[in-house]
Amino acid sequence: MPEQTSSFPGRVGILGGGSWATALAKIVLSRQPKLNWLLRTSTHVKDFKRLRHNPGYLTSVTFDTDRITFFTDSDVNDFFRACDTVILATPSPYIRYYLKRVRNSVIRNKLVINAIKGMVPEENVLISDYLQEYKELRPGQIGVIAGPCHAEEIAKDRMSYLTVGCFDMAKAKVLSEEIFSNDYVHCAVSRDVVGIEYAAVLKNIYAIAAGICHGMNKGDNFQSVLISNAIAEMSNFVSTVHLVSRDVTESVYLGDLLVTAYSSYSRNRTFGNMIGKGYSVRAAQMEMNMIAEGYYGAKCIHEINQRYQVTMPICSAVYNILYEGAPVEQSIDRLSTLFK
Amino acid sequence: MPEQTSSFPGRVGILGGGSWATALAKIVLSRQPKLNWLLRTSTHVKDFKRLRHNPGYLTSVTFDTDRITFFTDSDVNDFFRACDTVILATPSPYIRYYLKRVRNSVIRNKLVINAIKGMVPEENVLISDYLQEYKELRPGQIGVIAGPCHAEEIAKDRMSYLTVGCFDMAKAKVLSEEIFSNDYVHCAVSRDVVGIEYAAVLKNIYAIAAGICHGMNKGDNFQSVLISNAIAEMSNFVSTVHLVSRDVTESVYLGDLLVTAYSSYSRNRTFGNMIGKGYSVRAAQMEMNMIAEGYYGAKCIHEINQRYQVTMPICSAVYNILYEGAPVEQSIDRLSTLFK
Repeated sequence: MPEQTSSFPGRVGILGGGSWATALAKIVLSRQPKLNWLLRTSTHVKDFKRLRHNPGYLTSVTFDTDRITFFTDSDVNDFFRACDTVILATPSPYIRYYLKRVRNSVIRNKLVINAIKGMVPEENVLISDYLQEYKELRPGQIGVIAGPCHAEEIAKDRMSYLTVGCFDMAKAKVLSEEIFSNDYVHCAVSRDVVGIEYAAVLKNIYAIAAGICHGMNKGDNFQSVLISNAIAEMSNFVSTVHLVSRDVTESVYLGDLLVTAYSSYSRNRTFGNMIGKGYSVRAAQMEMNMIAEGYYGAKCIHEINQRYQVTMPICSAVYNILYEGAPVEQSIDRLSTLFK
Repeated sequence: MPEQTSSFPGRVGILGGGSWATALAKIVLSRQPKLNWLLRTSTHVKDFKRLRHNPGYLTSVTFDTDRITFFTDSDVNDFFRACDTVILATPSPYIRYYLKRVRNSVIRNKLVINAIKGMVPEENVLISDYLQEYKELRPGQIGVIAGPCHAEEIAKDRMSYLTVGCFDMAKAKVLSEEIFSNDYVHCAVSRDVVGIEYAAVLKNIYAIAAGICHGMNKGDNFQSVLISNAIAEMSNFVSTVHLVSRDVTESVYLGDLLVTAYSSYSRNRTFGNMIGKGYSVRAAQMEMNMIAEGYYGAKCIHEINQRYQVTMPICSAVYNILYEGAPVEQSIDRLSTLFK
């Protein structure tokens, strides 16, 4: 398809209006003249234009709204039509709602980059799998952007490191150079789309575990052992489901786990922390106004792993606590006997 | 030597009076009826006996001093004579002072376990190498105890994980079972004495780097990438100097790096933090009343790496900042361009 490649990456769009979407919009607009941006409602768009920042997220980041074409929920097909490269950045529970409504004939020639650190909950599949199965995209049209990157630090221009994965490495390079690299973002490239997607799902589950242990006051020694065991568990699982050569100490795997599990910005860790302090799962969810991706991820991975049967004591403990009412202290005690 | 094995681990001794030595004494006395303990001065011993705790370190841990036979600086040969298994737990700059004075005929049949997370500064050799070269011990008589373990958390009975390494695995197992495992310590075994010793030296250097970046307010994203790159750098170096099969995500390698680099208890991180905030190296050293092992480690590794020429940008940056007066901001900026 030389006609597509010539205009690649072409017109860039972001689907989603949360803090990670906002950070990505900031990055994209540092390199691209224009941006298509789909927010949920026309009220959201109106407030954004008036305030010149996203009303609810990263409010310190002001945007030149003349460079942004906004779309809303009802325009999802128009939004895709207006783009050549689309970055998916909604919370995972909402992505199916959008993708279902995009006509396959509209999405057909687009490059779609997954920035969601979660799976499609109902189907229990990776976003990249969903795009192939349900939207009939070819692997070369699918990418992933991930890495240890709190949106709040992108807002402050703090030096951060992302990795863009694409089954087509030539495209990954262009995406890195023309969209995702700037003064404060160093963007590496990778072919391991599947591994990066799974790692992003898993790290949120491990961050919940880290939060639980923090809430229980287990201490720094224990925390470091939890994380060491988590990266080993991640490595086992990912190499079972997708066997390619990868080094899990790279920042897109280990770094992302660390930033999520150790940082006070992490909503997954915060969610776990409340559970460790004795909140019920329900109460912890109600207390937070952001979605903890790991909550959904724990269920997805649990169900997928029925097929693979990888030994995953940490994910199992989190699943059992969140979904089966397993007692927190006993679950963590049991885990502690299994750590190496 | 069946006569030695039969009494193994025999009478246990600890050389050193700091917080790590005190934590180890607490662990040993949870499993062994008696302990020989060498502190520096007779005043120190007197105060200890009077207070029933170590006067300067982990003061919340009380000891049954009837179970402890104290020795002082001048008794170092008597101390070794009274022991079958000796744990070395002084700060690294002092260990040579003791070992030089121990007669080789006295140390000859002892098992010596290194708990020092540093090297012999003047000779630039690992403690295990020093014991072989200068004290003529055989590899099977040498062990190492390490892991992600702040002494302060041992004081509080917080669940912690250690690894005892020994060239003789049968001995490692006995040491784990009879000395180092208890209700709050899970002790793994390993054959990788050299790798564990190097990892323990390196992690203190990386913790200084983490502290510097923290002091400079580089943010959580950057910190996680620093640590990911640090574990990769550690892995490269250790597999160059001592090629055995090892998984650097195990807690004795990665976990120890994490607990040191992320924890506010870490004196190396604190030392780095002051430098990141603009203190001179001299001023930062004077401000602290504990030794930051990484300061010595940075020089040792720099000099050893003259021979191996492994690419170690993080260690080099720390060395240059600490010893060559390299400007902090420029050094970290340069480092940030090399991170993956």
